[in-house]
Order: sequence, then C-alpha cells, then structure tokens
Amino acid sequence: MAELLIDEILKNNPRAIARAITAVENGAPEAASLLKAIFPHSGKALIIGVTGSPGAGKSSLVDKLTLFYRNQNETVGIVAVDPSSPFSGGAILGDRIRMQSMSTDPGVFIRSMATRGYLGGLAAATADAVSILDAAGYNKIIIETVGVGQDEVDIVKTAQVSIVVLVPGMGDDIQTIKAGLMEIADVFVINKSDREGVERTEAELTAMLGLAERADGWRPQIVRTVATQNRGIDELASAIAKYCEFQRTHPQANERRKAIAEQRIIEILRQRLLSIALERAISDGQLREWAASVIAKERDPYSIVEEIIARLGL
Amino acid sequence: MAELLIDEILKNNPRAIARAITAVENGAPEAASLLKAIFPHSGKALIIGVTGSPGAGKSSLVDKLTLFYRNQNETVGIVAVDPSSPFSGGAILGDRIRMQSMSTDPGVFIRSMATRGYLGGLAAATADAVSILDAAGYNKIIIETVGVGQDEVDIVKTAQVSIVVLVPGMGDDIQTIKAGLMEIADVFVINKSDREGVERTEAELTAMLGLAERADGWRPQIVRTVATQNRGIDELASAIAKYCEFQRTHPQANERRKAIAEQRIIEILRQRLLSIALERAISDGQLREWAASVIAKERDPYSIVEEIIARLGL
Repeated sequence: MAELLIDEILKNNPRAIARAITAVENGAPEAASLLKAIFPHSGKALIIGVTGSPGAGKSSLVDKLTLFYRNQNETVGIVAVDPSSPFSGGAILGDRIRMQSMSTDPGVFIRSMATRGYLGGLAAATADAVSILDAAGYNKIIIETVGVGQDEVDIVKTAQVSIVVLVPGMGDDIQTIKAGLMEIADVFVINKSDREGVERTEAELTAMLGLAERADGWRPQIVRTVATQNRGIDELASAIAKYCEFQRTHPQANERRKAIAEQRIIEILRQRLLSIALERAISDGQLREWAASVIAKERDPYSIVEEIIARLGL
Repeated sequence: MAELLIDEILKNNPRAIARAITAVENGAPEAASLLKAIFPHSGKALIIGVTGSPGAGKSSLVDKLTLFYRNQNETVGIVAVDPSSPFSGGAILGDRIRMQSMSTDPGVFIRSMATRGYLGGLAAATADAVSILDAAGYNKIIIETVGVGQDEVDIVKTAQVSIVVLVPGMGDDIQTIKAGLMEIADVFVINKSDREGVERTEAELTAMLGLAERADGWRPQIVRTVATQNRGIDELASAIAKYCEFQRTHPQANERRKAIAEQRIIEILRQRLLSIALERAISDGQLREWAASVIAKERDPYSIVEEIIARLGL
C-alpha cells in the first residue's frame, strides 16, 4: 500500500500527493517511511518562500508568479501556510477560493497547511510537504505564509530563495519587522507600488540594506510590483533567477542550505522525541491531571517534566 | 547565589528580575531550579496578552493601558515579544524607545524577548519570563507581540485575557487572520477608530462573532480606541475586568487555563528532551556533517533521527 502510494506520487498523481501530505500533517506512523522513500527523488525543484505583512497582497503575487511560470511551461506546487487553526476552516477556505482560478490547470498543485495543535511542528510539516511536491516533479514550489511572525520566518527560511513582500507606507511596526526580515530576504518586493509612498519605502529599504552586509555577499534585490495588474512579475522572476545563479556560483551561499538541513534534522528529532515521551511515559488523562495540579499550585511544571524524563530512563 | 537571586526577585529588585529573565532566555542550567523555586510565589498577577497586525498601534495601546493601571496604583510588567533575531537588535531598540517614556517609573518593568534560534521555544521562554514578573509582584503583566503568526497566537493564548487589536479598513488577508484569531480573542480592540471604515470593521466583526459560539459562553467585547489620544482606554480596562469576572464565575472558563498548563508542560518537555539529545547523542560538528550528507543526498534526515534515538537508548 505504502509502495503504491510512493509510486503514484512519483507519477504526479494529485490524489496520492494530497493523501501523502495529509499523512504528514497528521503525523501518521507511515509518514516517516514514506518521506524516507521519496527523499532520494527530491532536490530538483526550486523552492521559493514568500512572506510579508497581512494585506501586502502575497496571494495575488503568488498567483501571478505561478501564471508566469506556467507560461514558461513549468509546473508549480504551492504550499500556503495559514496561522488559522484546523477548526476555523481558514486554510480550507483559502484553498477553495484559489481553486476557482487555477483548479483546471493540472500543472498547478495547491495545498494549505494549518496548525496542528501543540504536538505539531508547522515548519517541519511544511518542509515535508515540500519534499513530497518536489519528489512529485513540480519544477517550482512556492511556500506562502500569512503574517510575519517567527514561525513564518522559520518556514520561509527553509526555501532556497526568500521573498519578503512590503507595501508603500506601512505602519509604525515596520522598523521592527524589517529588522527581523532583513536577514532572510533575498528579494524584496514592494507590491501595490502604484500607491503613494513607494519612493520613500524603497529609499528606506535601500538605506537599511546599505547598513548590513550579508555574510554571503549577496545584495538583496528590490522589485516593484502591482500584482493585481500583473506588473513587475517578470522582473520578480528574473530577480529570483539571479539569486539562484549567485547561489550556484558562490559556494558560501551553501552555508544557508546546510543550516536549513541542520534545522530540519533538529525539528524531526524534536517531534520524534515528544511522540516517544507521550507514548511511553504519559498515560491517558495524565497530562490533564498534571495541568490541574499546576493550576492548583500543588506541583510545578518543571518537576513534572523531570518525572517524565525519569520514566523514559533518560 | 541562586537563593540570593530568588530572594531579590521576590523583593522586586529590577536587576535581579532582568538577570533571571536572561538566564531563562539563554536556557542557562540554573534556570529550571530558579523557576521551580519561584513557582509557588506566582499566580497572583493578571496576565493580559495583546496581539494584532503590524501597524495596528499595539505599542501605543499597551503604553496607554499601562498608564491607566499606574493611575490606579497598580504595577505593570510588560513582555514585548519580537520576531526579530538576537542579531538584528530589534528587540533592544524597542526597549530603548520605550524606556524614554516609562523608565523613570519604578512601577513598570519592560522587557523584550527575541528569538533564540532553533533551540529555543519562544512561547516557553515568554511563559517563564511572565512567571518571574508574577513572582516579583507585578499586578498586571502585559504580553505584547509583533505580528499575527502562529507563534504569536500561541504566546498570547497563554495569557488569562487575550486582546486582538484591529484597525479600520484592513487588507485582503483580514478574513484569514480573523479566522485564526477568533478563537483566542476575549476582547477585540478597533484602534485608530477615528479613521474611515470603523463602522464597517465593527459590523464585520460583530457578524463574525455572531456565527461562532464559544465553548465557554463568553461573547467577546468590541472596544473602540484611539490610543495616541488616550481615547477608549478606560473602556478597554473595563472590558478586561468584565472578562476576568466572567472567568471567576464560570468554571468552564477554567478549561482554557488547563489547556495552557498542559501546553506549558509539553513545551518544557520538548525543550528538555532536545537538550538531552544534543548533549548525549550528538558530538560537536556531527550535526553539520549530517546536514552536509543530507544536501549531498547521501542520507535522509529521517534515518539520521533514528540513529540519534537509538544512541539515546530509546
């Protein structure tokens, strides 16, 4: 059964791909062996991460970039990472809306990933979904996130090329956001660039980029777009291509890929260790009882964790 | 030394508090015993979480709410959680700017928390910092986040009262954000409510609140503010107080506190297990070598994790 699924993924069967991602999302026991099996088939796609403030127009930008690649005869997988919970249906809703415009194109696969509660590592699940799409043969894989929190930054960092989307005239938090995003952005997009304030935003950004030198020597490009009018998309695609070329010709750019691979090992390890602890050292209902004792101030969470560690024989 | 530090924290010595939070942030070995020792002294403060889109004016709102509480003779601890990395200095910058307006008041303690790389759980570190401020005797503790990612949602969820700040006329991602935030917001603030579109934003929000019934029966309040002009702050404080009263009189509201305590145990456990693995099963440089072998497609990360698990004897 598992082998059949793997075969079908490698044949780019969309139902098999969807099933495999669901297995990964749910932390199904067969997920690890599936990922192990497809791993040698991955590594061919270009993985692009897109993040930025809510309202910056990331979805439109990703849609237009997808159309651009489709016109070049390249297939595209999109993983949209949503901060909404599985209960709210936010992720599913997002899928549906997009499906209307692109569902008829077999060269595009769209999948939303939502939070999977405290047991899940969204970054790890996203990386796994990307591996599946990669093995399935999509040429470009775009990871799109909602929001600019640390989780999103972590997710986008796992891409080979990271794009940060800004809009002219953002609010007072912009300085702080930029500080956090400066290190991960290979390409900056100023979307909605027909709006007032675009010159100032670009000038601020350029000034900021002048302050800090990146370790790999790459100077992040700034591209102006109006995604809704399909303007600037080819410039964006060429900025992405330029950075890829830079990576190929500058071995120091590989340091980031190594750091990403390290982080992925750590994420899988973290997940696996927690699963083992929950399975072997914590009985049903026990966690809830412990939580009640913490609230009642009878116990503190640190000594509870020590007890769990001891039960595992560690 | 550790006992002296604990004593000084309980005496509300700001330098001792700052040192303890730094220890927690760095995952210092003495942090766990410190937290264990102060735990019985915590639980008295009211913990308020504030999240919302960048540019919504959260910082101003938190500042004005702090002044309101100070006028009532209550002390306030503020933990500002920043998505910026420790290298960018974003968090430190935030501290400095605020210090200018409130540093002369010994009844206010402000601390920024930044990401601590992949080994750190920012949510766990924030919870620990809140425990320290709680034990130090601050009456109100405000957790403020930048951004609306899952990490921020997780952090704000750990507060007793969660506030989501919106502004009139937000962008196209608002539906998705709302979906994710609907479940955690006990109070909605529409800040900058002197702007156009406030009626529509409130109407949309009210419609959305009408759709979903909360499990505990609480109907989230909507408060309009103009933080920069100090308008609506007393209404916000009274909405917060109202929800606290609701929690006191409705035992089902305790379910959330239990879920939070559970999550905290899980977070500490996850952290501890990873530390043990890194300490006992992974030698210096090993992780980097493994990462290189993953990039070279010689090994896959899943079999590497299996090897680590085996080394731990699990």
